[in-house]
Amino acid sequence: MRVLGVDPGLTRCGVGVVDGGPGQKPTLVEVLVVRTPPEDDIAYRLLAVAERVEALLDQHRPDTVAIERVFSQSNVRTVMGTAQAAGVVALAAARRGIPVAWHTPSEVKAAVSGNGNADKAQVTAMVTRLLRLDAAPKPADAADALALAICHLWRSPMQSRLAAALSTSVLAARPARIGSVGR
Amino acid sequence: MRVLGVDPGLTRCGVGVVDGGPGQKPTLVEVLVVRTPPEDDIAYRLLAVAERVEALLDQHRPDTVAIERVFSQSNVRTVMGTAQAAGVVALAAARRGIPVAWHTPSEVKAAVSGNGNADKAQVTAMVTRLLRLDAAPKPADAADALALAICHLWRSPMQSRLAAALSTSVLAARPARIGSVGR
Repeated sequence: MRVLGVDPGLTRCGVGVVDGGPGQKPTLVEVLVVRTPPEDDIAYRLLAVAERVEALLDQHRPDTVAIERVFSQSNVRTVMGTAQAAGVVALAAARRGIPVAWHTPSEVKAAVSGNGNADKAQVTAMVTRLLRLDAAPKPADAADALALAICHLWRSPMQSRLAAALSTSVLAARPARIGSVGR
Repeated sequence: MRVLGVDPGLTRCGVGVVDGGPGQKPTLVEVLVVRTPPEDDIAYRLLAVAERVEALLDQHRPDTVAIERVFSQSNVRTVMGTAQAAGVVALAAARRGIPVAWHTPSEVKAAVSGNGNADKAQVTAMVTRLLRLDAAPKPADAADALALAICHLWRSPMQSRLAAALSTSVLAARPARIGSVGR
């Protein structure tokens, strides 16, 4: 199974591609950080991120795209840019029929280090060890994108079962809701 | 000049197309609300919004897309969906080379009603009057999208001069910054 993990952002958007699966050692395929100049127009920054991610999706054909679920913790302007970048990445995956999974920062930290409050240095160290890399991926956005991909490889068997159970219950419930959809 | 205004959202995304310009009465071209079911996957909801907006861009060929600038006021989940929807709309415009302008809710309210704190009913009433409509556009997202387009038509002469002045100063400043871009 191949996962493309994304630590979304406009100034720096980390993208990491990892192969693996339950019981397999994860292997690095590619990692890079897409950067766009803060002084550029937001729409063109989003276009630059989208075009680069689309090229990587077409090149590596991942089975799933795993994106960090953003919370409104830091300053509003940064969070909006991050959410917009996450949106265009999710759109690029949806256009290709590739499922998108969302993981919170604490889920990612817990998955790779066993500690949901791990700091950036611990996450980077664990990613370096798990992927058997000679040097730590830099900057932190690159390591975070790889951690997201690894997190998804390990959590996906559980998530797939959950999603299947949910979609069954949603499908079963939907006919009763159709009357209110047009409201 | 033709402006496509967008009140971004995943559950309801208002889109309004208006013709006009300085000294001209604004005229309604089209208004609609794109809806996506909350129980669907976010990536596919974004795809549904993107595809509908892209069809409208290709049909009406606006000179500018005006999008509401989102703030993190309400609940985090709603704001993230709104920012993601705004991102895919901005991306669709950028792909077509159509400039994107962002206006805050208070700028829009002030432009159409003269009061930056106007309520939804006042905005809807002014949009109905300004566009000489027989009935008020519904729901509020439709009226808000039209208000955004009208706001842009009236503010754009000033914004264009500002943007030109800014881009000149950014271009003048950029050579000095190149050394730090690759960091």
